[in-house]
Amino acid sequence: MTEKNFVLKGDLCWSDESRSIQTISDGYLVCIDGKSAGVFPSLPECYAGLRLVDYSPYLIIPGLVDLHIHAPQFAFRGLGMDLQLLDWLERRAFPEEGKYANLEYTRKAYGLFVEHIRRGPSTRLVIYATVHSEATLLLMEMLEKSGLVTMVGKINMDRNSPDYLREESAALSLAATEKWLKGCNFKNTFPILTPRFIPSCSDELMRGLAGIQKKFGLPVQSHLSENQQEVEWVGKLCPQSAGYGAAYRDYDLFGGSVPTIMAHCVWSDKEEIALMAERQVFLAHCPQSNTNLSSGIAPVRRFLDAGVPAGLGSDIAGGVHDSIFRTMADTVQVSKLRQTLLKTAEKPIKLEEAFYLGTAGGGSFFGKCGSFTAGNDFDVLVMDDRNLAAPFELSIQDRLDRVVYLSDERNIRAKYVKGNILF
Amino acid sequence: MTEKNFVLKGDLCWSDESRSIQTISDGYLVCIDGKSAGVFPSLPECYAGLRLVDYSPYLIIPGLVDLHIHAPQFAFRGLGMDLQLLDWLERRAFPEEGKYANLEYTRKAYGLFVEHIRRGPSTRLVIYATVHSEATLLLMEMLEKSGLVTMVGKINMDRNSPDYLREESAALSLAATEKWLKGCNFKNTFPILTPRFIPSCSDELMRGLAGIQKKFGLPVQSHLSENQQEVEWVGKLCPQSAGYGAAYRDYDLFGGSVPTIMAHCVWSDKEEIALMAERQVFLAHCPQSNTNLSSGIAPVRRFLDAGVPAGLGSDIAGGVHDSIFRTMADTVQVSKLRQTLLKTAEKPIKLEEAFYLGTAGGGSFFGKCGSFTAGNDFDVLVMDDRNLAAPFELSIQDRLDRVVYLSDERNIRAKYVKGNILF
Repeated sequence: MTEKNFVLKGDLCWSDESRSIQTISDGYLVCIDGKSAGVFPSLPECYAGLRLVDYSPYLIIPGLVDLHIHAPQFAFRGLGMDLQLLDWLERRAFPEEGKYANLEYTRKAYGLFVEHIRRGPSTRLVIYATVHSEATLLLMEMLEKSGLVTMVGKINMDRNSPDYLREESAALSLAATEKWLKGCNFKNTFPILTPRFIPSCSDELMRGLAGIQKKFGLPVQSHLSENQQEVEWVGKLCPQSAGYGAAYRDYDLFGGSVPTIMAHCVWSDKEEIALMAERQVFLAHCPQSNTNLSSGIAPVRRFLDAGVPAGLGSDIAGGVHDSIFRTMADTVQVSKLRQTLLKTAEKPIKLEEAFYLGTAGGGSFFGKCGSFTAGNDFDVLVMDDRNLAAPFELSIQDRLDRVVYLSDERNIRAKYVKGNILF
Repeated sequence: MTEKNFVLKGDLCWSDESRSIQTISDGYLVCIDGKSAGVFPSLPECYAGLRLVDYSPYLIIPGLVDLHIHAPQFAFRGLGMDLQLLDWLERRAFPEEGKYANLEYTRKAYGLFVEHIRRGPSTRLVIYATVHSEATLLLMEMLEKSGLVTMVGKINMDRNSPDYLREESAALSLAATEKWLKGCNFKNTFPILTPRFIPSCSDELMRGLAGIQKKFGLPVQSHLSENQQEVEWVGKLCPQSAGYGAAYRDYDLFGGSVPTIMAHCVWSDKEEIALMAERQVFLAHCPQSNTNLSSGIAPVRRFLDAGVPAGLGSDIAGGVHDSIFRTMADTVQVSKLRQTLLKTAEKPIKLEEAFYLGTAGGGSFFGKCGSFTAGNDFDVLVMDDRNLAAPFELSIQDRLDRVVYLSDERNIRAKYVKGNILF
């Protein structure tokens, strides 16, 4: 028996492929070798000898998964939210990202970022760094020490970017990427190939990245159909492709055998959604960013109905808040506005569906993760929700509603990742 | 010299009729007899003898004003947000409000509410209680002790409501209202006449309330054009009136010599907006509630351009969050979605305009209030924003952005109302 074999007791609440909320009041969640061995209303005899941590009457839920967050943008979250995407990149995001050529600044800024997300509700994150290989490796070292499980991308961008940030050529960008990959030797911090988005990457760079993808068997992340101006621009940059998503596919960087996350997809049409379903490309839905940058509201219901795998992203700093609880609430809220304003027939996203997206939905990009089903990695949040009490009794489902809408990091009593306790 | 004469020092930030942000770094805010005597970059000689409280380097801003909040709904905020207005009233709001016939429950539930808002960023609130006179007076006693300045309404409703909540007749509702008014003898807690909304109030009741309004010279609050179904319903209930707002006017309860707040106004047309401007009826904009209940997005820019006086409302529990900082952020965000989705020509609301609405805009319903201009009531928040720091220096305006998007009650270092310190 190792340290990673133990039992947690409390009010259990989780979601699975059914996308509905499962609960067990005063139940048991068993961890064996860093994985869930299942949930039980009473503790099976065979686990009676394990160390039991009694978290009653707290709420025990899966760790949250952030499928899209920009580490260097954390520094300016909440500032100057009066621009749309392309201007915002020029005037806010790029100037800040330029600073990560300086390792001293990097250490300070990424230090704040890593400590913040370590204390927050996410147990897994898929992260953009900057073009800078050294700064990206420094971020990965810091993340490795945090106990979180992450995928991190050194960004590639060799066109349509300011001089201080643009890589000088496709060849140099590719060489820097291979060098960076050789430095990626971590246990819980994995590289993910990260062409910023098509406007920032030349054809030569995209083809080269597809080669690196095959050589190293890497997952891929990028941005897709976030903003109408951007979609039009890509149409002009890739006239040979049938659409923005199709352009990524034509570069061989869009699902199929390539595990892929595409953020935003606000303006994806029926064909693009069908292509994502066919190639099992993950949607990272980022409602707060899409609101702040006036991008619009992604038709999440259409993606779910089409069978596109999906999760949630905070998209710091297009989004201001890094908590995926907030992203769940935003997901429900903007889906209602979409229905009311556009008078669509699609039903709004329910809270239980948003909870699924922020746990098991996004978690599945990491394998068996994001749920309590036996065999899942043991990623767990223990939520002390006593300050969210009502003058009447609340069901576990009610308490989850409250935690999603009202909790903050003070409510996190304990956090486990792969069976290790972070705090 | 009384205790209410003193000076605060810190980074000052406020708004006034200009609706722009004013700042003084390391400045002085002088309180004389519970009112602002003005802001100064260096302390005038004549105030040199006053007690000085040095809050450097904290941010000093006006207290926030909540123009629309339902005290009894605080108990179930964040629960069951999957219904639209009329169903939500039947299934969520009315059953909870029914409990306030019981004074023991009332004491417990209002106790939680009052303590919560006392610790929050609002210094002034305009509050709905329930139909129950005794429970409303109990709430007012608790509020009086809190140090906040509030207006509180016993609700009137004599039709289209469940038996357990509906007042038996217009006459009994009016008598109960007069009796309640006689019990309202507080220094900082004032009665406001509160017909719930036209569907809940018979013609006879509305006419009687107009009489009480004149007799006591009371302000009035109600709901207007929140939801499309509701607007259609009022059209059928008041076929003689030119519209929903016009129906309130025809009852003589809509501005002019009657200080009036109307919450929501999501579906107000050009004529209704013009009528509100003409009669100087206040808009209480409640973006989060309008989102949660799928009501829509109010055209705030149109109200501002037309000269309608306006402030913000949390609308607990249509809204989940009672902080008007959150309402400011929501105001900016939904205005962007309105523009993007409806492709309107109206510009989104800027953060400085939302800050104006949540301070001086709403504050003006209370008289000279919500700004630091000399003569305003001395309502002040001192915000310790050190945990919202960046790896680079922030301007006062940047710090305000961060406070609006990211602060919570932990950041409130001190709170003053009319020159009295609450904590």
